[in-house]
This record gives sequence, C-alpha cells and structure tokens, in this order.
Amino acid sequence: MGSLPTEPFLPLDPDRFTKESKAVVDFIADYYRQIELFPVRSQVKPGYLHDRIPNTPPILSEPITTILHDIKTDIFPGLTHWQSPNFYGYYQANASTPGFAGEMLCSGLNVVGFSWIASPAATELETIIMDWMAKMLKLPSTFLSGHLGGGGGVIHGSTCEAVLCTLAAARDNALSKSDGEGITKLTVYVSDQTHFTVQKAAKLVGIPTRNLRVISTSRETGYALTAEIVRAAMDADVAAGMVPLYLCGTVGTTAVGAVDPIREIGEVAREFGVWFHVDAAYAGSAGICPEFRRFFDGVETADSFSLNPHKWLLANMDCCCLWVRCATKLVDSLSTKPEILTNSASEDGKVIDYKDWQVALSRRFRAMKLWIVIRRFGVANLMEHIRSDVEMAKHFERLVAEDERFEVVVPRRFTLVCFKLRYVGEDIDEEEGTKCWEMNKKLLDSVNESGRAFMTHAVVCGQFVLRFALGATLTEIRHVEETWRLVQEKASELLMITNELGWKLKTL
Amino acid sequence: MGSLPTEPFLPLDPDRFTKESKAVVDFIADYYRQIELFPVRSQVKPGYLHDRIPNTPPILSEPITTILHDIKTDIFPGLTHWQSPNFYGYYQANASTPGFAGEMLCSGLNVVGFSWIASPAATELETIIMDWMAKMLKLPSTFLSGHLGGGGGVIHGSTCEAVLCTLAAARDNALSKSDGEGITKLTVYVSDQTHFTVQKAAKLVGIPTRNLRVISTSRETGYALTAEIVRAAMDADVAAGMVPLYLCGTVGTTAVGAVDPIREIGEVAREFGVWFHVDAAYAGSAGICPEFRRFFDGVETADSFSLNPHKWLLANMDCCCLWVRCATKLVDSLSTKPEILTNSASEDGKVIDYKDWQVALSRRFRAMKLWIVIRRFGVANLMEHIRSDVEMAKHFERLVAEDERFEVVVPRRFTLVCFKLRYVGEDIDEEEGTKCWEMNKKLLDSVNESGRAFMTHAVVCGQFVLRFALGATLTEIRHVEETWRLVQEKASELLMITNELGWKLKTL
Repeated sequence: MGSLPTEPFLPLDPDRFTKESKAVVDFIADYYRQIELFPVRSQVKPGYLHDRIPNTPPILSEPITTILHDIKTDIFPGLTHWQSPNFYGYYQANASTPGFAGEMLCSGLNVVGFSWIASPAATELETIIMDWMAKMLKLPSTFLSGHLGGGGGVIHGSTCEAVLCTLAAARDNALSKSDGEGITKLTVYVSDQTHFTVQKAAKLVGIPTRNLRVISTSRETGYALTAEIVRAAMDADVAAGMVPLYLCGTVGTTAVGAVDPIREIGEVAREFGVWFHVDAAYAGSAGICPEFRRFFDGVETADSFSLNPHKWLLANMDCCCLWVRCATKLVDSLSTKPEILTNSASEDGKVIDYKDWQVALSRRFRAMKLWIVIRRFGVANLMEHIRSDVEMAKHFERLVAEDERFEVVVPRRFTLVCFKLRYVGEDIDEEEGTKCWEMNKKLLDSVNESGRAFMTHAVVCGQFVLRFALGATLTEIRHVEETWRLVQEKASELLMITNELGWKLKTL
Repeated sequence: MGSLPTEPFLPLDPDRFTKESKAVVDFIADYYRQIELFPVRSQVKPGYLHDRIPNTPPILSEPITTILHDIKTDIFPGLTHWQSPNFYGYYQANASTPGFAGEMLCSGLNVVGFSWIASPAATELETIIMDWMAKMLKLPSTFLSGHLGGGGGVIHGSTCEAVLCTLAAARDNALSKSDGEGITKLTVYVSDQTHFTVQKAAKLVGIPTRNLRVISTSRETGYALTAEIVRAAMDADVAAGMVPLYLCGTVGTTAVGAVDPIREIGEVAREFGVWFHVDAAYAGSAGICPEFRRFFDGVETADSFSLNPHKWLLANMDCCCLWVRCATKLVDSLSTKPEILTNSASEDGKVIDYKDWQVALSRRFRAMKLWIVIRRFGVANLMEHIRSDVEMAKHFERLVAEDERFEVVVPRRFTLVCFKLRYVGEDIDEEEGTKCWEMNKKLLDSVNESGRAFMTHAVVCGQFVLRFALGATLTEIRHVEETWRLVQEKASELLMITNELGWKLKTL
C-alpha cells in the first residue's frame, strides 16, 4: 500500500503543503455539505474500528488521497457529528470559518509562547484580546489587564484547567496563612447542578473528597444556589473548625441551564474570605448581548470568571477564557523559574509569561483564533448569532408547550430546553414515576436511534428529562421544526403501544 | 473599517469556508517560503503590539484579506519563528504537512470525544494509534491496550498534564492505603536536570514543596541520576517516617539532553513501591530507531511513560503520548460519573471514556493527527527524520570540537549540543569564571540579536553554556554550517575586543 519509494521526504515543502492542505479543505467542505446525510449519533458498536485499521503502522508513506478516503469510510461512521445542524446533545461546540482559520494559523505558525520572548506577539495579542472580550461582556474593569489591582485574562484549554488553576491559587494563598498542614481543613462549595469538573479539580489539587460541600437545589429556586443556604453551609464549617476556601457559582448549568444569583452568593463568599469563581462555560457568551447581562449581575464580587468561546462563540475547540482579579495569586501558585528560560524581558518584570497562569509549559496560540473570530464576524454578527439561537430555542419551547402530552420541566434561560412526556394528573405514585422515567428514556433512545437528531438527558428532581441543547453553528429554524416533528412522531409511536398497556400518559 | 452590512452572516457556509481556508493555506505556505527572511528571535520591545491593535473590538465584520494583512504587518514582527530552519532554542516544535492536515481535520470535524459514545471513532482510533506508537517504540506489551494487566495509552496536551495525572493517581493510590491524612508525608524524587514541570505538577496535586527531593547530578554521571543516590534518598525518607511516592526518570533532559539509567533507578522504585514515571518528552521519538533504544533499556520497570510527538515527530502542537501500566489507577483517581453523561456503552464497561484518563472533560481529536502523520510519512521516513537530525547535530558537534576556542560541555546524545567558549588552562578562579560566564552570555546575545539564528542557554555545573537544540523541520545541513559560521564570526568579534582587556580566552 505504500507509495513509490522515489517520493522524496519533504515534511514541510511549501508547494506540497499547499496542494495537500487544499485537498483537506475541500474534503472538510464536502463533509459540511453532506453532514445532514449522516446519522447524528454514531450507530456503531464498541470495537467497530478494530478490524478496519491494521494493527501495525505502515513502513512506507501513503498518499493523502488514500488517507482521506479511509477517513470517509472508516472514521465517519464512528463519529457523533457535533457539527450536524441536528446535534442537540451535551452542549454546542461551535465550528466556524474564522475559527477554523484561527486554528490553521495557530497550527501553521506553530509557535510556543510560554514566555513573552518565546513569541512576544502570542503573549501580547492574548492580553489585548482578553481585554476585548472583557469589554464585549462588560466585565468590571478589575478583570482588565493593566488595572491597578492586577487583574487580567488568560486563554486555557478547558474549564477544568481554569478551575484547577484558580483552586490551586486559592489553596496556596490559604495555606500560606497557616502552617501549610491545613489542606485537610479546606472546604469547597458547589451545588448539585455545578459542573462535575469542579469536584474533579478539587480532588486533583488535594482537597479531600469529604471536604466538598454539594449543596442541593430545588425547583423552587430554579435549581440555583441561594445566599442563605451557602451561608449556612459555611457557618457550619467554620463552627466545626474547617476553613471555607472556594465557592463556584454558575451562569447556565450544564444539566438544566440554571443560573445562580451571582451577587447574593458572591457577597457571602466575600464575608467569609472565600475565593469565588463564576463558571459561565456555556452561557457566558450570551453576555455580549445587553439583554442577557442581568444574569451576570454581581460578577464584580468574583475572584475569577470563565467562559468557553469554543462552545457558543464560534471559536472551534479549544478555547476557554479565564479572568482573575488578582493575577499575583495565580502566578504565586503556578510560576516556575528554571534557569533555561531565564531572559532579560522576564527578569525586568515588564512582560507576562503565560506559563505562570496555566498548568502546562507549552501553549498554543489560541489568541490568534479568538482575534480572527471577533474581527471576521464583528461584534454585531456575534450578537446576532447568540440571539438567533435563543429565538430558535424559544420556538422549540413553544412547540413543546403547545403539545399537551409534554411539559417543559425547567424554565428556559438561554438555548437549553428540558422537557418530558408527562402523566395526566398531579399525583404520581412510585410505580408510575418509574414508568414515566422509562417512557422518556425510550423516547430519547428512539429519537437518537433514528439518526435524524441527537439529544441527551438530565435527571431533575428524580425525573428523566430530554435536553434539547440548541446551538450548533449550522442549525436553522427548519431543523428545529423537523426535530420537533421527529419527537412527536416517536412519542406517538410509543404512546400508542404503552397506552394499550394501561399507562396513564396523555395522548392527543 | 467594517465590510458592507449587506454581507450575509454565514458562519460555516461550505463555499465561503473553502475560499477563505484556501486563502489561509496560501498565506501559511508563503510564510514558510519567506521564513528565512525574518529575524529568528523577535526583535520587538515589550508592549510593541499595544499601539498596533485597537483597544476595542470591531462592531462590523472585516474581510479575511485585511486580517491576513495585519497578521503579516503586526504579528510577524512579534513572532519568534519556531518553524525557522535556524531555530535552535528551547526544543524543536515540529510542524509538517501531515501534522497540519491532522490539525485541520481535528478542528474541522470538531467532535468532542470525552466518552466513547460522544464519538466512538475518536476513542477507538486513539487506542489503536497509541498501540501503533508503542509498537514503533518497542515498548513492553504491558503498555499496550488489551493487555491483561490493564495497560494502555492516551493522548494529552502536554507533559505537565501527563505528570499531573500520574502523580494524582499515585497519590490517591497511596492515600487509599492510609487514613487519607497522609498527603504531607508523601515525597517525590527528581534530579536537578528533571523538567521543572514535575515540581509544578507535584505542587498542583498538593504535595508540600518541602517534600520534593531534587537530587544533584554531576559531570561524572553525565548529569544523570544513579540507583545509589536514589536509594539513599528514599532510605532517608523512610527512616524519617516519610512515604516515598513518585520518581521521575528522564530520557533526554531539556537542559542538556542527559539520560537517567532507567533500569537501575526503576528497580529502586520497585523496591520501595514508588510510582516510576519516565519522561522522554523530547528524545522519546528517537526510540523508533533501533540504534537509540538502548537509552530506554529497562522501561518495563516504569509505571508510566510519556513523549511528545509535537516536539520531534512532526505532529504540530499539541500532542503528548502517555502510556500507563495500570489504567485502573488512573481512572480510579480521575473518573467522574455525572448523570448527564450516563450511557449504556459506558455502563456496560466495554468501552474507554478518555475523560477519565485526563484532566479536562473536553478533548480534541488528536489521534487523527498522529494517525495521519504516521501513515503519510510511514515509519521509514520518520526514522530517516530522526537520523538525519542526529547526523546534523553530530556535524555541528564536530565543528565545535574542531575549533579549539570552544568546547562541547556535555556529551551529545541526540540532537542537543551544549558548548561554550573556553578558557585556556585548567584552573579558573572565581573572577575568571564570572568573565567566562559573561563572555558566553554575550556570545549568545550577539548570535540572537543578529536575527540569523536563535539558541538558548543552560547552566551546567556553574557554567553558562549555549544550547544548540537542532530539530526544526526545515533545518538542512547548510543551515547548520551557516549557523556555525555565525557563531565563529560573533566569537571572533567578541574575543578581539575582550582579549585586549587581558582576558585569557583562546583565540585562533
């Protein structure tokens, strides 16, 4: 299968680079053109790829055309197509033409800007673009670079990295005030809706799992934390000799899109001297539109704030923006000063070395991507992108509400609609509850097995709900309507069968 | 500056995607064509970009041509050109046509394979390709997937992530045997040559800094650890009531390319029940050639092994391969089971969910890139890539050795040549030592300020040495020779001046 051995080994020849890269561009464009033809969720069985790929690597080179052919025949069936307009699972992972251009330039220039001198433009553009983002979101000036308090932004790969770094900074800052033995006393506060990444990060930085306070939320508070319950939890810990360390509030939780009252819980955090992080991974991008800024009210009480433009701001994977109010705390915890990286710019202290703001030494030039996305679209188009997604989600919510077999379980805030088939009547016994769970699970499975759309689920107050997480770049109103017809069709099929069994589910 | 408002907002239209992406490909190809014209190390001053970029984002969209123009005029001067054939700083960051193709496909498909079901191909290809890599390196079968002991590989973004995850696994495994209070007793062993990322990761996972044992190395042992000294350090800790946790051995240290004796120190680690990680971030890629495998002798004693194909295996940033002998320990420490990700494939336990092998939930489809790199080149070409780089480094080493004004300070193992201007005679007093340091620092500065090549430095036994870290994709023998002439030229200029001041540096 190898090519003729006469093909010269030219790993980065500009002419061959151009030819092969353009072939890949054409291939990806064709993928987008055909994407609606593929089942959204992969339909393969575990181990499907094992027999399709040789179990040893090739000795001789293979042409790019052969490789692209194999991607089509062997990889495509195993993809769950996150870029499909009918992808409504988990959360959106927006690809876009400018996001892709940014990734190409990042990868093509392939500079590693760990220190300023290692590529000054990578560092300086990141500082400037993080300020742009902060201004687009109307974040308090304390998060801007050059602010007296020493705030600023950095681009990470994921929310987990952002939480890990801020937790480490909070931990080291707290331990520096004690004898350093106190790590087992430190407590972390989240809600049962907070992303599990916070629990993982807390464990990673050495906080004992028993010191994690997972506060229950309820339907009454819209699945959000309240100041009272956070204060009570911290009071109890202080009384027990523990040291409250870190509180994570969320704007737009993953499971149901809930919004914690940032100002109220932030003020409690301040009372207790606790590091307050606001995770707006998904919904944070909505903050560029004035009408959504009320959800971020009180963000000035936060020590750090993060959101992922790779989710909902058209920035392709990966890109997580983190702002901190006091960069010194982050740097004190994460900095390293090996001799091999010593240079006069860093010694003079007039530059940022972003290696000291993140986990790894290496870093990709992600600021390039964010810069291109913002410029190519302009803020007006980005706002339009957010608004049209919200309008489409509202439309879906209306369609659900108009069909009395269904109910919207959690009030929609942004683009996530949590809904389910409902029982007639108010009182449901345990057996009926189980049947309702099973029925909705079956509905989800049948939607996903159709290949025509993909959604995932959440469990809310013991109920199994379908999550319609709108926001894929290519989704248009026709996809939303078609997906709703699909849900209705699958529901009708299921209800016809199950009501013959005497289940009290509503039929039209 | 914005475009006409009539341009429709089409964030991922296939035709526009094709047109704009191809323009970016042409732009990057031109960059490679012209790359030798740029000063290798950026010559800008801190803050240079501030006045070139508006301090607020544009409201309206801008054309891609404008953006590319600005990259050329505003960003290029601020780049230190890692892809220049005359880049010999830090370590190599290989870009290549197939590596770029892999990044394009990763970014274009933009799937997020955290769980198997989220894109089965992403998970399964990663498992297969990590086995390919293990076979190319002739790693022991215990690191292969499907092995009875439960080994396997995963692709991380950086060595720091690999070390962080294995350290957390080692820590949690150790703490599970104690009362969980013992984190302050755990000790970590590195040498003074080990990458500082291990110290950073140890601090991140909550190991007190005072529990880090940084073992001194010497010229006599080739700047490597020895079994005796490692055993002595662990013995002393056990005697003091501490619990030895983690040892990091290195094949090809960053500063001087030293190689720890893996078998010997690995056996000590086994004696003490310590997690043994082998970091071969840079030099690990050489393991695909039989003649370099002796440096990895004894790797079967390791609990984990990592190397970065984004350094020396043409895989563009970022790509760090980590193998573990017991994946269960990793998963026990890192797994999370949120309801929203529940799915039958994961519950059946027949699939891998790589989110449980890494820090973040999100992950890019990096296996695609590694697969394309290996297939497009073939193993034979990859071996040729390693060998020709080593031959070029040997040539440079010979050139240094032939000029009696210079000396090679550390025996070259792979492609890193550490050298310096030397004093005449054996005995150097402190003042002369300082002069020698200053002279070599001046030499490095003058090479880098010329813009014709870029090297960095290390400090070895109190001596300032220049690091010629060969391995950029585009480097050819002519660049090596030209760079050596540049070094000689700058040295002659310096020596002419300083010998007039009576310094005892050798002149020809």
